Amino acid sequence: MKIESDPYDPLAESGCGPQPKPLSEPRNLKQQVFEAVRASGRIPRVELARSLGISPASVSSICATLIESGLIEERSDDLKPSEAGRGRPRVSLSVRGDARYVAGVKLSDQKHGAIILDLSGTMIASATMDRTGGVMTFDTMLAEACEVLDSALATASLARSHLSSVGIGVPGLIERGAGKVLWSPILIDRDVDLRDRFARLVGVPVEIDNDANLVALAELWFGAGRERSDFVVVTIEHGVGMGLVLDHRLYRGAMGMGMELGHTTVQLDGALCRCGKRGCLEAYVADYALIREARTALNLGNRGVRSPQDLLESLYDHAKAGNEAARAIFGRAGRYLALGLANVASIFDPSLILLSGDRMRYDYLYAEDVLAEMENLMLKTGRPAPQVEIRTWGDLLWARGAAALALDAATREAFATEPVAA
Amino acid sequence: MKIESDPYDPLAESGCGPQPKPLSEPRNLKQQVFEAVRASGRIPRVELARSLGISPASVSSICATLIESGLIEERSDDLKPSEAGRGRPRVSLSVRGDARYVAGVKLSDQKHGAIILDLSGTMIASATMDRTGGVMTFDTMLAEACEVLDSALATASLARSHLSSVGIGVPGLIERGAGKVLWSPILIDRDVDLRDRFARLVGVPVEIDNDANLVALAELWFGAGRERSDFVVVTIEHGVGMGLVLDHRLYRGAMGMGMELGHTTVQLDGALCRCGKRGCLEAYVADYALIREARTALNLGNRGVRSPQDLLESLYDHAKAGNEAARAIFGRAGRYLALGLANVASIFDPSLILLSGDRMRYDYLYAEDVLAEMENLMLKTGRPAPQVEIRTWGDLLWARGAAALALDAATREAFATEPVAA
Repeated sequence: MKIESDPYDPLAESGCGPQPKPLSEPRNLKQQVFEAVRASGRIPRVELARSLGISPASVSSICATLIESGLIEERSDDLKPSEAGRGRPRVSLSVRGDARYVAGVKLSDQKHGAIILDLSGTMIASATMDRTGGVMTFDTMLAEACEVLDSALATASLARSHLSSVGIGVPGLIERGAGKVLWSPILIDRDVDLRDRFARLVGVPVEIDNDANLVALAELWFGAGRERSDFVVVTIEHGVGMGLVLDHRLYRGAMGMGMELGHTTVQLDGALCRCGKRGCLEAYVADYALIREARTALNLGNRGVRSPQDLLESLYDHAKAGNEAARAIFGRAGRYLALGLANVASIFDPSLILLSGDRMRYDYLYAEDVLAEMENLMLKTGRPAPQVEIRTWGDLLWARGAAALALDAATREAFATEPVAA
Repeated sequence: MKIESDPYDPLAESGCGPQPKPLSEPRNLKQQVFEAVRASGRIPRVELARSLGISPASVSSICATLIESGLIEERSDDLKPSEAGRGRPRVSLSVRGDARYVAGVKLSDQKHGAIILDLSGTMIASATMDRTGGVMTFDTMLAEACEVLDSALATASLARSHLSSVGIGVPGLIERGAGKVLWSPILIDRDVDLRDRFARLVGVPVEIDNDANLVALAELWFGAGRERSDFVVVTIEHGVGMGLVLDHRLYRGAMGMGMELGHTTVQLDGALCRCGKRGCLEAYVADYALIREARTALNLGNRGVRSPQDLLESLYDHAKAGNEAARAIFGRAGRYLALGLANVASIFDPSLILLSGDRMRYDYLYAEDVLAEMENLMLKTGRPAPQVEIRTWGDLLWARGAAALALDAATREAFATEPVAA
C-alpha cells in the first residue's frame, strides 16, 4: 500500500462543505398563511395554525390583517342538524375570489384557449378559438391571443383592466426569465419578446412559459400535486415535452431552459426533427412525425390535401384494419415513446409519470405494449416500475396552467406592495 | 367560439395551489453556524453574522456554546507588520479538527482507497490497495474494505473506535436509504446489506452511496461546489454514472435511486450492457465496452490473457498509429459520449458539466471532436453550450466523497445528541 497525494487537499485549509445560506431569509408570513388558506379551500383558524406549525395567536393576528385588506373572508360552516344549536357556529376562512382576477391563455396549432380565474382559483369563464394550423407571424399571434382573451373576458363581463396578471403559454423554446420565445413550431419569427409586447398590448403584467411546464403547473395546482410532492409530466402532442415537480415546486432546469426531453437524441443520425437535428425523440413520437409517415403508408404522396387531424385518424383506422405499414408506424412510435419514458425513469426515479396530451386517444399510446416495453428498457432493480397515468388533455388544461402562473404572480404582487406583517 | 367544460374545475372548490409546508421547521441554528464556520475555513464573528444574516449577539452566544462543547475554537489572526500594535489582535473562528474523525472508503475494480479526515475536513491519512480486478464475494469485499480502512487508520495512529462515522462507496446500484447494494459490477452477490454488515464489523455508523454520487459530493464539498450552486458530474470509468448538484445539495432522484445515465437507452436493440439490457449508454462508452471491441480489433480472440488496462493502452497506441478498427472504436465511443452529454444538457440545462474518471486520460474523451459533436446534438437555442471541464480522477477523489458523506453524518449526529440552543 502507498500513500498518495490528493488533488483536493489544499482546499481543506480554506474550508469545505456546502456553502451556507442566509438564515434570515425574508419569509412573508402573511403570504404563506394566505396560500395555505387557498390550498385548503376553507379552513378553521385552529387547523390552519396546526398545518403551518405556528401559534393560534399568530394566525389570528395575521388573518385579521388579511381580512382587513380584503384578501380572505370568514364563513360560517354549515352544520349538520344534529350539531345545530350547540354553542357558536364554527367559522372557516376562505380566499375572497373577487379580490383579484387573472387570465391564462394557451396558443397552439389547432386551437387557442383562454380562461379567467378568480383569486381563489375558481374558473369564471373560458373561451376557445379554432385555427387552421400552421405557422404564423408574431403580429398575428399577438392579435389572436388578444382575441381569445377578450372573448373569455366578455363572457365573464370583465374588462382587461380588471386583470391583475395574464399567463401565456406557447409550444417551443421559451426563455422565461427574459420573456422571450426563442423558437416555436407555430411561429415564423424567432427570438420574439412575447412577454413585453403582449403586456403592452393588454396593459397588464404578463408571464410566459412553455406548454409542458404549464401542464405540470396545472397538475401541481389543481391535479396530481394535490396529493403528491414529486411527479413527472410527459406531454405528447404537436411536440414532446416534459415538466418536473420536485418537492411541490416546478423545476425549470439549472439555467431555466431544461427539460427538453423531446430533443434528447434517441438515435444517432436518425429521423429528421423539426428543430433541424436528427434522431430527436420528438422526430419519432410527435404528431408531425406520424403524419409524414402516414403520407407514405397511405400512398398520399403530394395529392390529398387533408388536415393533420384527418390524416392521423385515417392512419389509425388503417392500423386497426390490419394495414401493415400503418401498424409499423404506430409500433415504432410506441417503442420510442417507451424508450423516452424508461430514460425519464432511469434519470429521475419518479413514483408517478403522467402522460398528457391530445394524442393520448390513440390506442398505441396507452397500449399495454408500450408500458411493458418501458419496463423492458429499464434497469432491473427489483423494485416496481413507476406508475404511469394517462391524462386526456382537455382544451383548457394548458390554459389553466397559464392561469396558475398568473395567479402566482398576482399573489406575489399583492404581498409585495403591502406592508408585511412582523 | 365556444365555452367548454374544464376537467379540473371541481377541484377549485376544495382549494388549489401548491400544498403549504410547516413554517416552523426545526432549524438547528447551532449546526448551521458550525457549518458556516467550516465552509469558510476561518472567519471573524462579525463576518459570520453578516454571511448568515443574523445578529452579532446571536452569533456570539451560539459560538460560546460551540467553543464550550469543543467543536470550534478561536484563533488570533496573523497581522501584517504594518497592522501590528493597533489595538487588539483580530480573532477568527475555526472548526476544531480533532473534535471528531471520519473515514471514507472506496471499493472499485482495480484499486480500493481509504481516507481519514478530521472534523474540519483536513486529510489526516490515506491508503490505497491494488486489486487484480473482477467480481468478488460479499465476504471478500467486507474483508478488503476493513483492510484498506485499517491501513489508513494505522498511518494516522488512530483506532476504529476513534471514528465517528465511515462513508463507503461502491459502483453499481445502491439503495441508500436501505443501506443496500442491489447490484455491483465488482460483486458476485446481489442485494446485500453493506451498510449494516460493515457497521457491525467496524463498530462505527456507516453511510453508503454509489461512485458517481460520491464524486459529485467530493466536488460539492471540496471542488466545484465552492464556487457554484448547480452542476452535473458525469463519471466514465468501469461504468458511466451521473451526479447532480442543485442549489448546493446533491439531488438523488425522487425516490432515491435516479441519475442512472449509464443505463439510459441510446440505441434500441443496441450493444449489450452488463446490466442485461441492450443499447445502454454504458455499453458504448464504459471501459468494458471498449475492451470487448479491442479483443476483436487487435485480433486477440481468446488468446492473450492481458489486463483490461493493458488492452486499453494497446488499443489506444494502435489508434494513434492509424489502425482503422482501433480508431473506429474510439470514434463511436466518442460520438455516444457526446450524445449522452448533449442529452444531459437538454434535460438539465446546466452551466457546468464535469467529466470525471480514470479513462479521461484517453485522448478520445477530451478530443475537441467530442465537444463539437455534443454541440451538434444539442438544440440550437442561440445560447452557448454548457461549459465542459475534464477532471482526472485521482485515486482518492471518490474516497474523499465517501468521507464527506461521513463528515455530514458525524456533524448531524453531533448536533442531534446535544441540547439545541434556543
